Amino acid sequence: MKPLRLHPDRLFPAETRTRDIARALYATVSDLPIISPHGHTDPAWFAYNEPFANPSDLLIVPDHYVFRMLMSQGVALDQLGIPTVDGSPTESDPRAIWSRFAAHYHLFAGTPSRMWLDYVFTQVFGLDVRLEPATAALYYDTIDAALKTPDFRPRALFERFNIEAIATTEGPLDPLLHHKAIRESGWGVKVVTAYRPDPVMDPDDPRFIEKVKAFCAMTGEDVGSFAGYLRAHEKRRADFRAAGATSTDHGHPTAFTAHLSRPEIEALYAKVMEGPVSAAEAELFRGHMLVEMARMSIEDGMVMQLHPGVWRSHNDAVLARFGRDKGGDIPMPGEFVRALKPLLDLYGNDPRLTLILFTLDEDVYARELAPLAGHYPALKLGPPWWFHDSPEGMRRFRENVTETAGFYNTVGFNDDTRAFLSIPARHDVARRMDCGFLARLVAEHRLEEDEAFELAHALSYGLAKQAYRL
Amino acid sequence: MKPLRLHPDRLFPAETRTRDIARALYATVSDLPIISPHGHTDPAWFAYNEPFANPSDLLIVPDHYVFRMLMSQGVALDQLGIPTVDGSPTESDPRAIWSRFAAHYHLFAGTPSRMWLDYVFTQVFGLDVRLEPATAALYYDTIDAALKTPDFRPRALFERFNIEAIATTEGPLDPLLHHKAIRESGWGVKVVTAYRPDPVMDPDDPRFIEKVKAFCAMTGEDVGSFAGYLRAHEKRRADFRAAGATSTDHGHPTAFTAHLSRPEIEALYAKVMEGPVSAAEAELFRGHMLVEMARMSIEDGMVMQLHPGVWRSHNDAVLARFGRDKGGDIPMPGEFVRALKPLLDLYGNDPRLTLILFTLDEDVYARELAPLAGHYPALKLGPPWWFHDSPEGMRRFRENVTETAGFYNTVGFNDDTRAFLSIPARHDVARRMDCGFLARLVAEHRLEEDEAFELAHALSYGLAKQAYRL
Amino acid sequence: MKPLRLHPDRLFPAETRTRDIARALYATVSDLPIISPHGHTDPAWFAYNEPFANPSDLLIVPDHYVFRMLMSQGVALDQLGIPTVDGSPTESDPRAIWSRFAAHYHLFAGTPSRMWLDYVFTQVFGLDVRLEPATAALYYDTIDAALKTPDFRPRALFERFNIEAIATTEGPLDPLLHHKAIRESGWGVKVVTAYRPDPVMDPDDPRFIEKVKAFCAMTGEDVGSFAGYLRAHEKRRADFRAAGATSTDHGHPTAFTAHLSRPEIEALYAKVMEGPVSAAEAELFRGHMLVEMARMSIEDGMVMQLHPGVWRSHNDAVLARFGRDKGGDIPMPGEFVRALKPLLDLYGNDPRLTLILFTLDEDVYARELAPLAGHYPALKLGPPWWFHDSPEGMRRFRENVTETAGFYNTVGFNDDTRAFLSIPARHDVARRMDCGFLARLVAEHRLEEDEAFELAHALSYGLAKQAYRL
Repeated sequence: MKPLRLHPDRLFPAETRTRDIARALYATVSDLPIISPHGHTDPAWFAYNEPFANPSDLLIVPDHYVFRMLMSQGVALDQLGIPTVDGSPTESDPRAIWSRFAAHYHLFAGTPSRMWLDYVFTQVFGLDVRLEPATAALYYDTIDAALKTPDFRPRALFERFNIEAIATTEGPLDPLLHHKAIRESGWGVKVVTAYRPDPVMDPDDPRFIEKVKAFCAMTGEDVGSFAGYLRAHEKRRADFRAAGATSTDHGHPTAFTAHLSRPEIEALYAKVMEGPVSAAEAELFRGHMLVEMARMSIEDGMVMQLHPGVWRSHNDAVLARFGRDKGGDIPMPGEFVRALKPLLDLYGNDPRLTLILFTLDEDVYARELAPLAGHYPALKLGPPWWFHDSPEGMRRFRENVTETAGFYNTVGFNDDTRAFLSIPARHDVARRMDCGFLARLVAEHRLEEDEAFELAHALSYGLAKQAYRL
Repeated sequence: MKPLRLHPDRLFPAETRTRDIARALYATVSDLPIISPHGHTDPAWFAYNEPFANPSDLLIVPDHYVFRMLMSQGVALDQLGIPTVDGSPTESDPRAIWSRFAAHYHLFAGTPSRMWLDYVFTQVFGLDVRLEPATAALYYDTIDAALKTPDFRPRALFERFNIEAIATTEGPLDPLLHHKAIRESGWGVKVVTAYRPDPVMDPDDPRFIEKVKAFCAMTGEDVGSFAGYLRAHEKRRADFRAAGATSTDHGHPTAFTAHLSRPEIEALYAKVMEGPVSAAEAELFRGHMLVEMARMSIEDGMVMQLHPGVWRSHNDAVLARFGRDKGGDIPMPGEFVRALKPLLDLYGNDPRLTLILFTLDEDVYARELAPLAGHYPALKLGPPWWFHDSPEGMRRFRENVTETAGFYNTVGFNDDTRAFLSIPARHDVARRMDCGFLARLVAEHRLEEDEAFELAHALSYGLAKQAYRL
Repeated sequence: MKPLRLHPDRLFPAETRTRDIARALYATVSDLPIISPHGHTDPAWFAYNEPFANPSDLLIVPDHYVFRMLMSQGVALDQLGIPTVDGSPTESDPRAIWSRFAAHYHLFAGTPSRMWLDYVFTQVFGLDVRLEPATAALYYDTIDAALKTPDFRPRALFERFNIEAIATTEGPLDPLLHHKAIRESGWGVKVVTAYRPDPVMDPDDPRFIEKVKAFCAMTGEDVGSFAGYLRAHEKRRADFRAAGATSTDHGHPTAFTAHLSRPEIEALYAKVMEGPVSAAEAELFRGHMLVEMARMSIEDGMVMQLHPGVWRSHNDAVLARFGRDKGGDIPMPGEFVRALKPLLDLYGNDPRLTLILFTLDEDVYARELAPLAGHYPALKLGPPWWFHDSPEGMRRFRENVTETAGFYNTVGFNDDTRAFLSIPARHDVARRMDCGFLARLVAEHRLEEDEAFELAHALSYGLAKQAYRL
């Protein structure tokens, strides 16, 4: 068996002087509480504090980073116990699933998943040998036994992880009962929601009309008028704020925005509520609604997040059998300069608005996003996202945006994950990479050391708290 | 107060062997005279040698790198004394402006502006403490006092900066009186102009027709015929050459070129001179005129520069209140392969033509620009421009273009600035980054040391002089 | 005269610890046999083992990397002896050609050509002084003398280069006689062909119809029916497999694929066989045929390679006088996500298919290719290609794809060259760069050392052999 240990210098540049500076910087931020302002953990975990089922259900079945890589190398999703849309059975033995994972663990060499998982194995479960076929059973038994103990229930882990604040993401029809249960339990930690209205803003959703009807019904608003629909948003935003939300999130296909006249948007609303519309009309509706969301954000103070540019569920066969979010989402080219202009023309200079932009197209970091964020008061840049939430991705982000947008137009780190156990690992990677980047600037005499210490704190903690008003 | 000093190893790679090589290379080029073949200094400074007004008017108000960053973090342009289009008043107290700048100086951490400014503060004004609120008054007083002395007048600074040759940029209607005054003053330094005919080549300019009329009038040519319009260009090019110009500069929205037949362009000229034309017709006119400019360059020997791909004045509110060039310009994707083909089909193989290409879209460095410049005799690559005139930008440029285009298809450094005092700082950054890049190649045994010394000289001095025929 | 020697640490990172790891890794792979699964050497060399003519005909005239750079700096192709389309004479003195090359050898500083050439000069010909005008004659004489000896005939070099397997590329009309001659000679080394059917799949080829007719004629199939045309492909694929082929190669303008119904493709086939079709129809035919090729690959086990995205022969004047492949090919933006969907919908989840993707647009590495290859079982990523077959290109490839696709969705190195003598140099560069990349991961504690040794072997040898089924 091979030893498994996390090296204290991991992710720091190898060059001695730079590494020493990185170490010193990291020492001041490694134990800071975690601010997790954008993610997808399940609030039910924290509300009811039930134990996690077993190692495979916790670490493999819900983690699309993991099973997409296994699938790419010929392990069928059926063999990994991924549930099917029609309920037809797939592998049901979690030990068999874990074995297959262990047999292919070498595939993750050099990937962030590998780093996150090794962190979880060592830091959360105390394992000290590497995962491979020979240790698969040891792993399974160790993790499974731990999960049955009180120390590995969600709230205990949450406290152990030193999370100061975490945001989940809920849809506009969510009754927010889990968040209510958390508050009423008197647990006293900061778990807040975020308002993600995509399902009632996207006419391309096959169940859009039905959802908008339910949305207006649950708020007691008139679905027959655009004014009623807008009031439904306002009411639900208020509900979300009452559940602690400080932000909205928008996962549109593109960053397109539009500002229609009142008669135009009323007519378009009537049309999208009647039935199928063209792709252009659906885009126009989404684009106009982003502008409405910006207006409401100015009014109610919620920070706005835009996550555009993904081709969801590219693999038809996987979508048909296993549903959405199964590792088949592929990035698309981004465009922000033209797309955001209507919104920016109205609100870009308004310091009350904070619009945080994310992209999966790294080409726009230096060309579009940094120049925009380095000019418009309302714009900030979210951290490297999804495929780019990785050491090289983080390095490219800082190298590409800092010189034009500086550090203070960025907003710290988001883990953006439903993999609860990986949250400390992800924040640790971000803190290490940021310290490494700052260390390089210091070692190259492009930044003074005292500034680097201030920035390390800001990037690890302060900027996220401030930008998200947490 | 925190000490401010420029570290002698700044911008060199931290790794010891590489840094030592970089130091040795830099030592041979640090004191070379500055060749500044493309920029936007005001020739009136050198013609009349008046003192600069005060620290804020010199270093903040005209520097869009500076005030765009401040604006992005909520400092209104009004508070920074930026003059308005309608003359309505903004902050008029230069000390108050300077204070606001000092209070936000931390925003520039990690940006090239910070490096340039610290260079100016220490090397030009002898300051040795860092700018922060506590030192704002000291800074203001020190700089203000210096500006009142003869040593800080434009010509004294020019000589102190060791500028061997500098090009300004003038429009086609400019009478070139300042350049005349410089020549007639017998000062004996090389300040030349460059011909930038955009205003009379761009039908999208709202005052295009009026400008073309003035252009033909000032040259005594017939505005009613395309032939007359072309002759006006030829005459003005001759005027500019007489004022020392060795280059033209073209700031088009795209790199589009076109070659129309004589009847086609005559008809199009008549149309653009009649009134508003479509976007496509305006693009066609600009594109054809680039080809005419290339032809004239072959005839008169002027080097041609193309700076495409910027969305000018993206922020409507800023444009309306403060006018153009106020930090709201945003890059756009570039395309050169299709765009330049008509021009290259005619003149790309003609060694008499030098067409220097610039881009704000770094994606095209390796994909389009290096392959084109590594093939066509007429093409050369300009240095990293504007947002990319920065350490990381320079590093990416060399890493992306060198392997396909080599060093000798590039043309040294351009400061491209109206911030006169920053010129030595900018050239110093470029020399350091180039030496660092060469040092890495030597340290990795990809280049011999004697070649690196030759190249350091070429990149710092020789290539610019040669490419621009200065 | 300046000494010429290859430094044993060349291309390794300069940082001491990282370099030491790179050295250790490289020591285990430097002598591995070469697997060259994709290239353009001439099988006639190996079939008939004739001596190469002279230094210039061997190293300059056929190497578009070399003469494109010379041309870009004003050396006319005529002066380099490049043969013309119409047979009109160009420089015929190989010594004069070699002299011109030597006089401009400094242009290659920092390019991969320089590294490959120096490798050939020292390792193949034993030269120990640098090429420059003063040594041009020494070089010419040394190389010329060597070429006249048996040790420098193709087979001797092949064996000296330790090539375990090499694939050439032949068109669909090639009688494969050279490959037959190699087999029949009993030489007993692995020289295989690859099936590149572009000429009979691309209606934009001016001689397309004529070629398809010959193609059907040589296979005895009915050119009048699409079924006959498909059977001709099947027969020729079988011929190629008999000549050792394990792969097909497709050099399309884009990655576009399409799946037409049988009546639709039959009608389109009839149309393209009648005469000129629109650009869209030609694209549709090529796109559908890629899907047919994927189907056949599943049936016959041939690995499929797609090399899209090049504007061939951009320079009209060079094309007219010197023909294709003369250094005037320029990359174009790539798009794979939409383009490949029809093919992937049919066969993307089929583990029997291996489709290896190449690109000249590095923007798609992290955005499109790594996410696709990290999901679809049928997809693998080819190595950095052509302009990017270079140290920085290789570094960018690994940095951009590894975190999402891992190492095992890549396929080792391709030299893709007709420059036979450069093959060991190119593989050496790839091995060194991969070892350097792995060393960085180890030095930054992102990869364990034992894994790095395994991966170094896989990237240098194992993955190519496995992916190409050699």
